[in-house]
Amino acid sequence: KPLTIGLIPADGIGREVIPAARQVLEALPSNAMPAKLSFIDLDAGFEYFQKHGVALPQETLAALKGDCDGALFGAVSSPSHKVAGYSSPIVGLRKQMDLYANVRPVISGSAATASGEKRAIDMLIIRENTECLYIKEEKQVEGPEGKYAIAKRRISEFASRRAGEMAFSMALQRDAMRQQLAASERAWTGRPKVTIVHKSNVLSVTDGLWRETVRKVYESNSQYKSSVDIEEQLVDSMVYRMFREPEAFDVVVAPNMYGDIISDGAAALVGSLGLVPSANVGDSFVVGEPVHGSAPDIAGKNIANPIAAIRSAAMLLERTGYGSAALAIYRAVDKVLAEGQIKTPDLGGKSTTSEVTKAVCKQL
Amino acid sequence: KPLTIGLIPADGIGREVIPAARQVLEALPSNAMPAKLSFIDLDAGFEYFQKHGVALPQETLAALKGDCDGALFGAVSSPSHKVAGYSSPIVGLRKQMDLYANVRPVISGSAATASGEKRAIDMLIIRENTECLYIKEEKQVEGPEGKYAIAKRRISEFASRRAGEMAFSMALQRDAMRQQLAASERAWTGRPKVTIVHKSNVLSVTDGLWRETVRKVYESNSQYKSSVDIEEQLVDSMVYRMFREPEAFDVVVAPNMYGDIISDGAAALVGSLGLVPSANVGDSFVVGEPVHGSAPDIAGKNIANPIAAIRSAAMLLERTGYGSAALAIYRAVDKVLAEGQIKTPDLGGKSTTSEVTKAVCKQL
Ligand SMILES: CC(C)[C@H](C(=O)O)[C@@H](O)C(=O)O
Ligand SMILES: CC(C)[C@H](C(=O)O)[C@@H](O)C(=O)O
Repeated sequence: KPLTIGLIPADGIGREVIPAARQVLEALPSNAMPAKLSFIDLDAGFEYFQKHGVALPQETLAALKGDCDGALFGAVSSPSHKVAGYSSPIVGLRKQMDLYANVRPVISGSAATASGEKRAIDMLIIRENTECLYIKEEKQVEGPEGKYAIAKRRISEFASRRAGEMAFSMALQRDAMRQQLAASERAWTGRPKVTIVHKSNVLSVTDGLWRETVRKVYESNSQYKSSVDIEEQLVDSMVYRMFREPEAFDVVVAPNMYGDIISDGAAALVGSLGLVPSANVGDSFVVGEPVHGSAPDIAGKNIANPIAAIRSAAMLLERTGYGSAALAIYRAVDKVLAEGQIKTPDLGGKSTTSEVTKAVCKQL
Repeated sequence: KPLTIGLIPADGIGREVIPAARQVLEALPSNAMPAKLSFIDLDAGFEYFQKHGVALPQETLAALKGDCDGALFGAVSSPSHKVAGYSSPIVGLRKQMDLYANVRPVISGSAATASGEKRAIDMLIIRENTECLYIKEEKQVEGPEGKYAIAKRRISEFASRRAGEMAFSMALQRDAMRQQLAASERAWTGRPKVTIVHKSNVLSVTDGLWRETVRKVYESNSQYKSSVDIEEQLVDSMVYRMFREPEAFDVVVAPNMYGDIISDGAAALVGSLGLVPSANVGDSFVVGEPVHGSAPDIAGKNIANPIAAIRSAAMLLERTGYGSAALAIYRAVDKVLAEGQIKTPDLGGKSTTSEVTKAVCKQL
């Protein structure tokens, strides 16, 4: 059975890194990737909106639902001022396809960190992906005291439970995978741990519900309770601690907006946003998506780092049942990074997107 | 005319660092501090709530309003689970006293950064201090699809304008102060700049209003327009960029919650939260407050870093018209840090709170 992947480059460097990821997928030798791959090009994005008045066309959604086993999303540009009728297509996609968790692994691997220092970072951020301030229920009001606007932040037991489940099960899964590594290869050597991020000292009701629900997932599962440690961290302290002792985190689970901020912050620790992949995960679909944005300043120059997109493609394979194909890609990327010769400008190199892509393909 | 300062140590290490700050204020020589100082001890905090059922007593508010020219607040502990009737006293204080901006200077000074590297960081974060998710309008609902909770996030033109005004006027003020420094002493060498933080790609209405209002403050003032540069930064990218090139920021203005997160993150860059002061500023009152929390793990051990509180006391003096007294404190702290002998454990030293306090007093 072939694996059909929808490709949604969207805006800016999305148009460069998604083709790069496709190239790597196509270069997989058949012993690593048993299924035939096929690709469907799909539209979405702010540029598409400017031409067609819609950022996430119905045809794209229909093709994803009807014809694809998974997809890759590039990046989307932000309008520089308010644009009537525009709504972020990636936020829409997550909602429409019920991709309820955004899984963001941040590993130091062989990359240089921001400070030049090497720290053993091996963090997995699970970002709730469907609610919080991202429900986009906002309204503007003209009151007696002047103009103001209200946004609603929604936290449900249902969504918090799913995110919590994902966090604890991934913590166990990571632990099982680590058992297969030599001790020297392990960045995280302790028991699996889940850090619950919230701000319940201010948002006692919404973040209170979030934290209690995630805790309940833990308390009601004897396997989690016996094998996983948990801790809590206020979001402000989380950002502080992440930069002071990033090696102290294993799995981190956070409501949508905190997860967005934390994962960009974590990316700074491993040298570049251009290295950090993600997977938007639902029960029956997955969309790989580099954590970086559309980077209009470097778009069209063939210098964007394709590694985040390539790793996102590997995450897609992992989630659709092709773990050894995924592993082959992760290893190829790690080798290219470890050799340190071929790297794009964000990592201090002078290589092009194409050169990095070629180097990864060669290592497969 | 004497200067009367309310002291609210509140919880945990607040009880150690506020007395330390008082000691430094009392040690100011009369040529630096012309006015007589008097102090009023005031109650608030989670521990106080546990005993008396109220976290911010009316008497404290009445004394602040009636008898004090300014105040110092220590830190407040967070309950480890939801506690009926409890509401954060510092959030209440900001609201009740209309302290609409939280001013948080983050300077590398002579402190070692997290990475051991020295970077010239000289950032001033202006955090809107009265609204956003901090209005704490939350409710829990039992819907057909289960339990969920909603919090409201409020952004008003009025509050955004005040925060914007504060940001641009501080940018000019900082520039004027820098002109008095030797070129070699300046961390920031460019034109003054204000970075507007938001997430209007998702929150187009609330953060749209925030960003437009702050921009309007700029556009409608010819002095700002001719002397200050502005830029915008999405909050996720802001955290990323802050860690990649912290030297790229001068004044940063942000809605309440983003400002909370960013300032903790910035503190990591200068080596310790124990160094970063803030001032909660209104039109007629100011409350100095270290950015750190109550740190229950180290409370009562006389090892908390008092510098954030001491610097917060200096900010209080600066804002109440005693600029040279403030400068004397800043310089004394800088000297102690530069000598590098006497430092608390958060900076890698072994000194006590009392020793650091004494060392600062000696330099006055
Ligand atoms: C583009 C934007 C809407 C998006 C988000 O905030 O989720 C991006 O920052 C991300 O992290 O995927
Ligand atoms: C204690 C807490 C309510 C507070 C806040 O979030 O404002 C603290 O983190 C701060 O930054 O002063």
